[in-house]
Amino acid sequence: MNERDVIARLRRIATDPAARGLADDAALLDGFVITHDTIAEGVHFLPFDPPASIGWKLVAVNLSDLAAKGAAPRAALLSMAIGDPDWDEAFLDGIEAACESYGIALIGGDTIALPPGAPRVLGLTALGEAGERTPARSGGKPGDRLWLVGTLGDSAAGLALLRAEPKASGPLVDHYRRPVPLLAAGKALASEACAMMDVSDGLLLDLDRLCEASGCGADIDLDALPLSRAFIAERGQHRKARLFAATGGDDYALLAALPAAVDPFSLSLPNPTTMAVIGTLAEAGGIRLADAAGPVELPETLGYEHHRF
Amino acid sequence: MNERDVIARLRRIATDPAARGLADDAALLDGFVITHDTIAEGVHFLPFDPPASIGWKLVAVNLSDLAAKGAAPRAALLSMAIGDPDWDEAFLDGIEAACESYGIALIGGDTIALPPGAPRVLGLTALGEAGERTPARSGGKPGDRLWLVGTLGDSAAGLALLRAEPKASGPLVDHYRRPVPLLAAGKALASEACAMMDVSDGLLLDLDRLCEASGCGADIDLDALPLSRAFIAERGQHRKARLFAATGGDDYALLAALPAAVDPFSLSLPNPTTMAVIGTLAEAGGIRLADAAGPVELPETLGYEHHRF
Repeated sequence: MNERDVIARLRRIATDPAARGLADDAALLDGFVITHDTIAEGVHFLPFDPPASIGWKLVAVNLSDLAAKGAAPRAALLSMAIGDPDWDEAFLDGIEAACESYGIALIGGDTIALPPGAPRVLGLTALGEAGERTPARSGGKPGDRLWLVGTLGDSAAGLALLRAEPKASGPLVDHYRRPVPLLAAGKALASEACAMMDVSDGLLLDLDRLCEASGCGADIDLDALPLSRAFIAERGQHRKARLFAATGGDDYALLAALPAAVDPFSLSLPNPTTMAVIGTLAEAGGIRLADAAGPVELPETLGYEHHRF
Repeated sequence: MNERDVIARLRRIATDPAARGLADDAALLDGFVITHDTIAEGVHFLPFDPPASIGWKLVAVNLSDLAAKGAAPRAALLSMAIGDPDWDEAFLDGIEAACESYGIALIGGDTIALPPGAPRVLGLTALGEAGERTPARSGGKPGDRLWLVGTLGDSAAGLALLRAEPKASGPLVDHYRRPVPLLAAGKALASEACAMMDVSDGLLLDLDRLCEASGCGADIDLDALPLSRAFIAERGQHRKARLFAATGGDDYALLAALPAAVDPFSLSLPNPTTMAVIGTLAEAGGIRLADAAGPVELPETLGYEHHRF
């Protein structure tokens, strides 16, 4: 039973409509959008990452799932491995700062001690209030325009900097450590999106999931991917850099399939919102990449398999 | 910042009424009773415990929290560290069996890979529908009778057997590995209980929490503690055995404070229900133990500190 088998087995267990087939960012139960993410030291964060940023990020990545469903954050339950007093205090500083920033109430959870030397494991369950519409990953149709809110590659570039130099700093490192969930944009887009999800594991991998859920393929214009100035300064914007940005992960951008007739700039988006059309959904047949020079072969690795469901 | 400091800090963050001051078995949010428990290999279960029983127990311990609030199980999100195919499959057998047995829908969660050699960490968030009343730990009043539903000490005795002989079996080992959440009894008692909680970390430790939350003390008759035949056959029922049963933990019994005028046998309890008056709440002043021979000194360790909140 490999990871795909585990997910397949979980999907066979999860037959309730609230589960959305475990093929979405979150569950939808009686008006609550509910998600859970667990992160582990050495897998999802670096042992030397500042604990306050890990606390912040744990909240933010869950809220990004709520953002992708257009939900308003409401409450969270925290699962926390404790042990090192200074670390724990700083981690809770980050949890508290993120909860305050996004108006989410900590309402419960569990603290556990792990055996000595075990990597830290931290989890958060977030509940949000569903809006009028809660777009799934599965509603996309051929011809829908694919909009990307946010920028790509910053976090992966920041992580690469940190791997080379643990004391690295700057906007790319900030993006890796303190992602910002795009709650207001998600709420605005949810009113019109046929399908929506957050881009957390790499654009191409997440797009592949949206395509699979929607029974579509996609044509993507690599030149259209929104890149930040900091990213371009660090990595450039040639094809290789764009493929890095499209597969790096930890972006917490939003990917929305909108009918071609909808102009998302007519929605009440926060100002400024970085948003671009990066392609269109097509009939089933996989993802096709192109840039100004012509077709681009799909990379072997589409993103980072966090095993999220 | 020791564990008490962490809990104190979490309580300062958790100011929303839904959190119930993090001093209850579960949160209460818009008609949902919500709880989360995380368990770790080497801390909450033995490395050689059968994985199906670990899956069962993870669901059952969360449902015990719902039982203590009189809630009806509805949905769960699973956080699962994966890696060993056979183990993962058997674990999911246990999850599925418990979800089916108690009518709870798996609606989401997360699977993660941990670094090689890391102890397994598994978490579950359970949501239940609140009944007409959701008794807290804090509603007890001096004079209330303390009722115990279930038996005490079986699980701790089973764990002791397993520690001596990993191939041990029998009803005590079964109780340790496959606890049964007392959902129907909890639902019936919730209609009348001033305060209620599940006994998971040891009766005396959990009673101490109920007393603290209610601003009461308690008088407990050790001779009245309900013990199973299997427990008595293994450990006897003398004072030392009773103190073991009162502090061992992992019981998943229910402790309810009921007004003296209420006869719980008049409620629609499942048949049979093992239930006994074990004492009364008193004015604040700690827990006093006695048996037929007179007062009994309170043991130094009241239970097992799982660090739950």
